Parts: sequence; structure tokens; C-alpha cells
Amino acid sequence: MRPKLQGLIAAPHTPFRADGSFAPDIVAEQARWLASSGVVGVFVGGTTGEWPSLTVGERRELFEAWAAHRGELLFIAHVGHNCQRDAMELARAAVECGAQATSAIAPSFFRPQSGRECADYYAPIAAAARDLPFFVYHIPGMTGIRVSPDEQLAACLAAIPNMAGMKFTDPDLYAYGRCVTKFGDRCDLVWGVDEILLGALAYGATAAVGSTYNYAAPLYRAMIDAHERGDRARATELGLCATQLVEALIDAGVLAGGKALMARRGIDCGPPRPPVAPLTAEQRERLLDRVDAVDALADHGAVCHGAE
Amino acid sequence: MRPKLQGLIAAPHTPFRADGSFAPDIVAEQARWLASSGVVGVFVGGTTGEWPSLTVGERRELFEAWAAHRGELLFIAHVGHNCQRDAMELARAAVECGAQATSAIAPSFFRPQSGRECADYYAPIAAAARDLPFFVYHIPGMTGIRVSPDEQLAACLAAIPNMAGMKFTDPDLYAYGRCVTKFGDRCDLVWGVDEILLGALAYGATAAVGSTYNYAAPLYRAMIDAHERGDRARATELGLCATQLVEALIDAGVLAGGKALMARRGIDCGPPRPPVAPLTAEQRERLLDRVDAVDALADHGAVCHGAE
Amino acid sequence: MRPKLQGLIAAPHTPFRADGSFAPDIVAEQARWLASSGVVGVFVGGTTGEWPSLTVGERRELFEAWAAHRGELLFIAHVGHNCQRDAMELARAAVECGAQATSAIAPSFFRPQSGRECADYYAPIAAAARDLPFFVYHIPGMTGIRVSPDEQLAACLAAIPNMAGMKFTDPDLYAYGRCVTKFGDRCDLVWGVDEILLGALAYGATAAVGSTYNYAAPLYRAMIDAHERGDRARATELGLCATQLVEALIDAGVLAGGKALMARRGIDCGPPRPPVAPLTAEQRERLLDRVDAVDALADHGAVCHGAE
Amino acid sequence: MRPKLQGLIAAPHTPFRADGSFAPDIVAEQARWLASSGVVGVFVGGTTGEWPSLTVGERRELFEAWAAHRGELLFIAHVGHNCQRDAMELARAAVECGAQATSAIAPSFFRPQSGRECADYYAPIAAAARDLPFFVYHIPGMTGIRVSPDEQLAACLAAIPNMAGMKFTDPDLYAYGRCVTKFGDRCDLVWGVDEILLGALAYGATAAVGSTYNYAAPLYRAMIDAHERGDRARATELGLCATQLVEALIDAGVLAGGKALMARRGIDCGPPRPPVAPLTAEQRERLLDRVDAVDALADHGAVCHGAE
Repeated sequence: MRPKLQGLIAAPHTPFRADGSFAPDIVAEQARWLASSGVVGVFVGGTTGEWPSLTVGERRELFEAWAAHRGELLFIAHVGHNCQRDAMELARAAVECGAQATSAIAPSFFRPQSGRECADYYAPIAAAARDLPFFVYHIPGMTGIRVSPDEQLAACLAAIPNMAGMKFTDPDLYAYGRCVTKFGDRCDLVWGVDEILLGALAYGATAAVGSTYNYAAPLYRAMIDAHERGDRARATELGLCATQLVEALIDAGVLAGGKALMARRGIDCGPPRPPVAPLTAEQRERLLDRVDAVDALADHGAVCHGAE
Repeated sequence: MRPKLQGLIAAPHTPFRADGSFAPDIVAEQARWLASSGVVGVFVGGTTGEWPSLTVGERRELFEAWAAHRGELLFIAHVGHNCQRDAMELARAAVECGAQATSAIAPSFFRPQSGRECADYYAPIAAAARDLPFFVYHIPGMTGIRVSPDEQLAACLAAIPNMAGMKFTDPDLYAYGRCVTKFGDRCDLVWGVDEILLGALAYGATAAVGSTYNYAAPLYRAMIDAHERGDRARATELGLCATQLVEALIDAGVLAGGKALMARRGIDCGPPRPPVAPLTAEQRERLLDRVDAVDALADHGAVCHGAE
Repeated sequence: MRPKLQGLIAAPHTPFRADGSFAPDIVAEQARWLASSGVVGVFVGGTTGEWPSLTVGERRELFEAWAAHRGELLFIAHVGHNCQRDAMELARAAVECGAQATSAIAPSFFRPQSGRECADYYAPIAAAARDLPFFVYHIPGMTGIRVSPDEQLAACLAAIPNMAGMKFTDPDLYAYGRCVTKFGDRCDLVWGVDEILLGALAYGATAAVGSTYNYAAPLYRAMIDAHERGDRARATELGLCATQLVEALIDAGVLAGGKALMARRGIDCGPPRPPVAPLTAEQRERLLDRVDAVDALADHGAVCHGAE
Repeated sequence: MRPKLQGLIAAPHTPFRADGSFAPDIVAEQARWLASSGVVGVFVGGTTGEWPSLTVGERRELFEAWAAHRGELLFIAHVGHNCQRDAMELARAAVECGAQATSAIAPSFFRPQSGRECADYYAPIAAAARDLPFFVYHIPGMTGIRVSPDEQLAACLAAIPNMAGMKFTDPDLYAYGRCVTKFGDRCDLVWGVDEILLGALAYGATAAVGSTYNYAAPLYRAMIDAHERGDRARATELGLCATQLVEALIDAGVLAGGKALMARRGIDCGPPRPPVAPLTAEQRERLLDRVDAVDALADHGAVCHGAE
């Protein structure tokens, strides 16, 4: 049996040039930085990676760019698409590029209405990914899907041989607890809501995928350490730092804000693509100030704050 | 100045074979049937056309298939996509294929948050469609967009030279009234909610795009006629027939149900693609019975009910 | 059989003094004004009447104040309450005061989950109102109830002997059409969304209850006349005036704005009670300007605009 | 300065007879049982207490019945009401009955739209409760209020002298973290979502109000103990038991299900009042079986399972 996933997995930004064109050459910088900051893997071309704003061809190129780094970082390729045929093509591309796992989001325009319809939608995609572990990407705040994650898991575990777990980007800890109880011994339930990771640890989460691990992995690693060694006061303190970090990002715009933090660190991922708005100069400045304040609270060095 | 759009515009189903592959050869049958049933145009590759489930290449092929019929039917090409670059490519394809107008839906994963962001998103797509009239496709029940249609129109009319109007697939007649008041003299507000078209006529709608005009144009034409000649009792009666038709379709599943009605008429558009579920035999039978009952109420021949 | 309800029924404001205390003496002024402006009845202590902000004792006093005017105006007493026992007490009070019909809103904290649960909740209240016609008050935008109005009507018509119809304050014209089709011959479906009344007329509405009929009954009466005599252009024009009137009110705050319009007419209903905020001076001024502009568009005199 | 609240506070059911009439004599049994099961206080007449289904007179009687037990159990009186004047009357009644704190829910029909409007609504109620500590009762899933809890707290702490904290019945741990960060040193943030209490403990919660503490306080106390002594595995295990307990209750209906569990323990709180549906015999049986299974998992005796 496959061992449980452990640790922090970043969902990297897709790098663009100032004119919005894809800049694959930045990926090597992202990979180096992430590996050095204690991240164990990458979830490539997910929401933070702006998958809906990329063409299928660009998503394939993105996989190719990350493939070079799969020695240092577990390479999970997000292949989901509203168009099942495109998702299947992307799953095949992921295999060719040497991805170590795949994941697919639910279609969010037409939506599955039951666990069965979820499984029917995902099965051909997972099959196209051959024997790679397959993760359902559950993010109902974006997809609007109404099928509960436990219903999805029950159906998909029954129908999909390479079903390996779920990226659980749903703040509903009660639903998470239900899934842990029912399926925790059969698959990985990878937590996906950075700002309340500490809560998920209490329910047994061992791995997490997220956007803020791109620039604040040391903060979360310190929080996990405190949790594991039983230093509850410190864990709470760092958990609240994560809350404040995310609050600053949400006020600015998470995606554009995250790219601004990467840029300050010297890794220029460019602006987001439309319809995601770029930061104004004022938003950027205010974000950086707030992030520095969190960094000071947490311990200098916990949040990415400028090139060395 | 361009004259106002008038009449019924069908949003045709995209024809698939039983294995789900695209069947462009059916388009000619659809075009012939639609022209004969009193429809004045087609909105190609919209929601009924399952745009999110088609690859970009298939959408281009679909435009090519419909291009042959633009003499008989006004050809509006839906080019919207979550990926702005794909939408721009499709807009160029529409121009090449001889489309007479284009339209684009809002991105529905990442969503514009203001009229300004809508206009910024749409402008390059409309520009790619050159001098073709451009329609914003407003369907908030599917996209989840929260910017009011009047705010969208104000921003887009200011920023987009070829802005021609809105496909208003929003049951909010109050919002429709606001748009008619503010922008009705400057653009077309094409009604998109078949089941309450009679209500929109009262507020001045002159054109409508919809799914049920594929198989029930005679019903709606009779309703519009009654409305225009002041026969209020008959207009109400036929308006309620439309309500019942749509109720039967919604209970079965509008997309799969619509394809079943077309199939009965001899035009085999195949099953919908996943995640849209096909009808069970029982659903299909019940749907046909209910539709026949509506047809009898309306006047035999108002709803498509079998090959001649 | 009871004849169909016909015409405009105002939902009067509950008059308060500046300190928020109940001012029953103003009711006579309201009644005189309403009767003179062409309203046929009153829906007392509804949403516009701020029922949730009144004590049970005050609601009884309000019924007593309106009882004196039931010769001129059909007196429908709203007796609904989250507490069924309070609603029953109010129904008995309505009978004692000589109300001509009663109505009750769904409980909106704990909510019925099915038509059956609706009927079970309403039945004892309707029974307490003895042989008075009973109307279910359907206003899902406020109550959050998710049971469709047709399901509610089916259950209530089966279980409640004095069930007379529904106050349909739901902008969903499709649902309205379904109810007209199924139950229109057995009960009154009184339209309750002023800003799209013209749409409801198209589906056969003959009576309407609303807030803006307190001060703009002439506008709506002119609209109904135009509709009935087949002057579609004028009906549309006046329908759009109603849209603009409501837009001005919503921008200011419908409840406080309505009270400001009454005050200008010389009928001082005071401020709303908390948590409904009063208008600022600026909001009030802007509202009055916009309303005057609508009045000028509609025909001077269509909207209440100052003491004679 | 007042010390922090610590421990579990039950939200007791309001006891009714089979005919739905209020049965105040059962309160003594509830109080005895709760004190013996390790609960430190009671939140009287809250959601579990069916406040919306009680008349104001009954709520006063309920306060009187609980007043006798305030030596053993901290007595927090819920005085909230859609009608501010009724809430003020209830606050005065709470003072007269010797309540040790009061709390009020937001009005949920007309709703405050900003922190300022919340504070304006609550201030007179808190003032009527004189010098008793006052808690805002935040339960957006029921009230539909959209003002964030941090905005509410900022406004209420500034405007209400006896403001003591918030009953935080909102599963949004991210919002909880924000409130702890900003206001945790100035007031009590009492957790109110039983099924994820373990997550809230991680963010520093020290007190909780809830429905399931009526019958499962030993389970939660064991969970809290494990958490505090650093036994993470056991804390997780018991946290997941709480999840399963609540899942069984939600499937049956939390309110009616809770009353069934109390009845099994020998404390007959009767059925809920309409519109809350009672359990069917089948639902009751299935609930008891599932609860017994949870009890066996947790440790026999953790969940109330029959008279001694």
C-alpha cells in the first residue's frame, strides 16, 4: 500500500510575462525556491496556477516545465477541465511528462448532481492517467458543486481503480471529519484551506496543498512542529499568524497578492490573466506591510519577505 | 444604425454520435428544420450547444458546419470561454467562418467583480471579432456572476465599439426593465428565458434566444402573434403552455430532454456529454407524454412531436 | 364560489411617532388617502407594516385601528409569526376586529421543509381564523423558504378548508405560471412584486398586494388600464416607470423610503423601527428627486408627490 | 476584569407536554442531570430551546424555572427577538429572574446591514440587561446575517458598555481566528458548533455552548482533556466521535433527535413545536442505534444512553 502523503505541497503560480504570455523559464526558479523552503511537492496548474485561463497547449507546456524538478518535488499534475475530453488529453500529457500523480476538479458549468455522476465524469480521466494515483479536487466554493465530499468519495473509490484521495479545499471541517471517519484509512485527504490548517491537523490531516505555501512554508512548518511536539500555545499563535496572512491576501486579492509576494522574493511570475485583476500600487504596498507585520509576529523568516 | 433584432433565435444542440464524438453532418438537418419552423437565427455553441464540453477545435468545426446556412438563418457564434485566449481564437474563427455576430459568456471560475472588469475581459474578445456585432451573454444562474446587467452594459457600451447588446438569460424581469430603460435605445436586449418570454414581451422584448425554440417555435410564434394582435386571453393561454413545456423538460433534464425531442422529430443529436446525464427510458417516455399533452393544449403542431 | 380578487391592495406602513412608539391615530389618514387613490383593500401588518418589529399587543391594536375602515377598504389581516401560538392568537384577534380575510407568512427561523410541513404549520392558524378566507403569504426572499409555491398550494388546498389563495411575493414568474396552471381556477394568486406587475398581468394576475400602492396607485392603475385596453406601448412605458420608481426606492431603502414618500404627502408614519435604518437627509432628497422624475415621465399625478 | 469563561455550557431544550404546552416542571430534572454530567452552565431559550416558537410570556416563565438552579449552573438568558421591544422586555425579565448574563440573536427578517446597525440594534437590549454581561449570538446559518463577526464585534465593543463577547455559532474557523486575533483579549468568544469543537480548541477556544452537551458532555469533556494533556491521537479519535454523533442527529433532525435522546435518559422534553417535525418511530430507532455505536467507540458512558 502507498504510504500516506506527508507535508506541505505548494500550488505554484503560473508565470507570465508582462504581456500575459506564458513564461516557462521561471519554473526552475520557483522549483529551487520551493525545495529550499521545505515544501515536499507541487500541485501544478491548479487554481493558483490559473488553469482556467490557460489553453490546453499551455497546460501541457507547464507540465513539461515542471517535469524537470520531480526529483526534488513530488509532481502532481492538475488535469481537470470543464471539457472531459480536454481533461483526458491533459491526463495523457501528464503521464508522458512523468507526473507522479494527477488530480481533476469537477466541471463547474454543467455540474454532476450525485456521487455516481461524479464518478462517471472522473473515471475516463483517471483511466487516461493510467496507473498514476488520482485525486479528486474538491473546491466547492469555486465549482459550486453540491454533492457532499463523502458521497463523492464513496462513489469514486468504488469506481476508479487508481483513486488515491481528495484535495479537500472546503472549509467545512465537519465534512472533513466525516470523510476521515469513513475513508481515512483508504485514501489521502489532503487539506486545501491554508488559513485553517491547524484545525485540520486536529482531525488528523498529514498533508496539505495550498497557495500560501509558495511563500510562507516556514510559518506553516513551524506551526506543524509546534502542534506535533504538543506546544499548544505556540501552535495557536502561529495558526493565528496564518489567519492574518490570509486575511491580508484576501483583502488585496489572493492570486495577484501571492504573485506580488513571489516577485518581492525575486521570482517574477508576472500579473494574473483576466478576469483576475492585478494589484494597484497601493494594494501592493499595504499587502507587503501587513505581511511583514505577520512575519515579525511569527518569527522573522516565516514569510517570504525579500530576496536574500 | 443597425435595425433591432426581431423574432426567435434557436440555440441548437451540438450533435454527437452515440460514442460522444462530434457529428457535424447533422447540422444541415437542424438548419433545415429550424428554418422551416419559423426561427430566424441560431446561437451556435451556447449553453444548449454544450460549449464547455467541446474542445476548441470542435467549436471551430461547429462554426464551419453552421456557416453553410447563414443565408437562411442569422448566424451568431458563441465564442466565450473561461480562457480569454481561447475565446479570442474562437472569435477569429467565427469571423473566418462568416458568422454574422458573436457573443461571449462571462468567465465563471474566476469571475469579474465589477462592470469595469467585465469590460476589460470582453474587450479583447470583441476586438478579435472585428466589426461583427458583439453580444454579452448574461446567464448568472450558470456563471454565478454578481455584477448587475445594467452595470455590465454601462461599462461595455463605453468600452467596446462593436458592442451590440446582451443575451439576457436571467429571469429577473426587474433587472431587464432597468436595462430597457437605460440602454434599450442603444442596443438589443435579447431575452433568453423561454418559460417567461411572455413577461418579457410586456417590457418590450422583440427578440429571444432559447433552447426550446429548437422544437417548439410554432408555440412561441403563436404566443407572440396573440400578444401583438391584443388577444390577451390567448397569449396567456399559450404562455402557460410554454410554462408547462419547460416544466416537463426541467423535470427530465432540459438538455437531454431537448435532444430527445429532436430525436423524435428525426434529428438525432445523440446524448449529451458528461457530466450531463442522459435520460432514462422512463424519463424519456414521461417527457414525451407531457409534451404531447402541452401540444394538444396549445394547438396540435405547436410542439415538435414526431416526424411528418 | 367567492369571486376573484380584483385590483390593487396596499400593504400600509405601520405609523410610529418619532420615538418609535405606535401611533394608531394616523391610520385614519392612511385609510382616507388610500381609498381616494384607487386602492381596493389593505394588507395590514405585513412586511411593509413591519410585523416582525411589533409586539403581539401592538399588532392587535393595529387591527383595531384598521377595523374602522373596512367599509371602504377590504381588510386583510396579516397574522403570521414565527411562533405558531402567537399567530393563532392574532388570527382570533383578526376575527374579533372584523377582518375580512387573514394571511400568514411562513416561519422563517425554523422553516417547513415540505408542502406537508407547511400545511401542518398553517392549518391551526387558518382554523383560528374560522371561516375567513386564508391566504398563504409566500415571500421566499425574506423567509428563505425552499418549498416551491406549487408544492405549498397543493398541500394547503388539500388540508385547509378556508384556504383562499396565496400572496405571491416571489419574482419567479415561471413558478407563478405553474401555480396559475395548476391552481388558478381554485384560488386567488395575488401578485406581490410591484416592480414587475406588468409581467404578472400577462400571466393572468387580476389582483396585487404591494408597498408602492401606498403612494403610486394611480401609476399602476394607468398601467393596468393600458394593458386591458390593449395599448401595449403605453403599458410598457408605465411598466418601466414602475421599474424606475422601485429602483429609486431600493437604492434609498424601500421601507424608510416609502415612509418618506407618505410623509411628503402629509401622512407622517414616522421612521421605521430598528434594525431598519432611517434615511439620511441626502438619501431622502435624492429619492424625492428621482420619484418626481418618474412622476413626470408617467404623467403628473401618478406618484404621490406632496400635499394638495 | 471578568475571568474567561471555561467549559461546556448546554443549550437546554424547552420542555413541552405531548399537546405542545409548556412544561416548566421538567426544568429541575434537566438542571440536575446537566450539573451531574459536567456542564458548567446553561444558555436558556436559545435555538435548541426553540425561542422563536415560544411566546414572550413563556420565555419569561422559562427564565423563572431556570433561575432556581443558578447556584449549580451559570445562567445565561437568551433574550433575542425579531422585535427589539420584546427583546428589551425579555432582558428586563432576565435581570429580575437573576440571570447571570444575557445574550441576543440578530433580527433575522429585517437584518442589520453593517456593524453599526448591529450595535444600534443591540445597544438598547444590552442596556435593558443593566450590568449583566451581554453576548451577541452570532448564528448566520439561521439568521442569514451577512455582517462579518469581526465587524460586529468591533462596533459592539465600542458602543455597548456591558458587551462581554459572542456566542460564535458559525463554522467559519477562519472568521473565528480573525476574531480571536483582534478581540480575544477583550471578550469571550464562546464556540457554538459542537461538531468541530476540537478545531476551535486549536485556535484557543476555552468555552463552548451547544445542543449536544445536553446529552454528550462526557464525550466532549474527555476530548478536551485529551487535547489539554497533549494526547493528540485520543483527541482526534474523540473529535471524530463527536462528528459521527452530530451526523446521526442531523440525519434524524437535530432538535427532535436531541429531545429523543433526553427522553431515553428519562427526561421527557416532549416533541418540538411546529414547524419542526417530530421524529418518526423509524428515525428514532435508527438514531438511537447510531448514537449507541458512537458511544461504544468513544467509551461507554460518553453519550447519554438510557436511565441508570
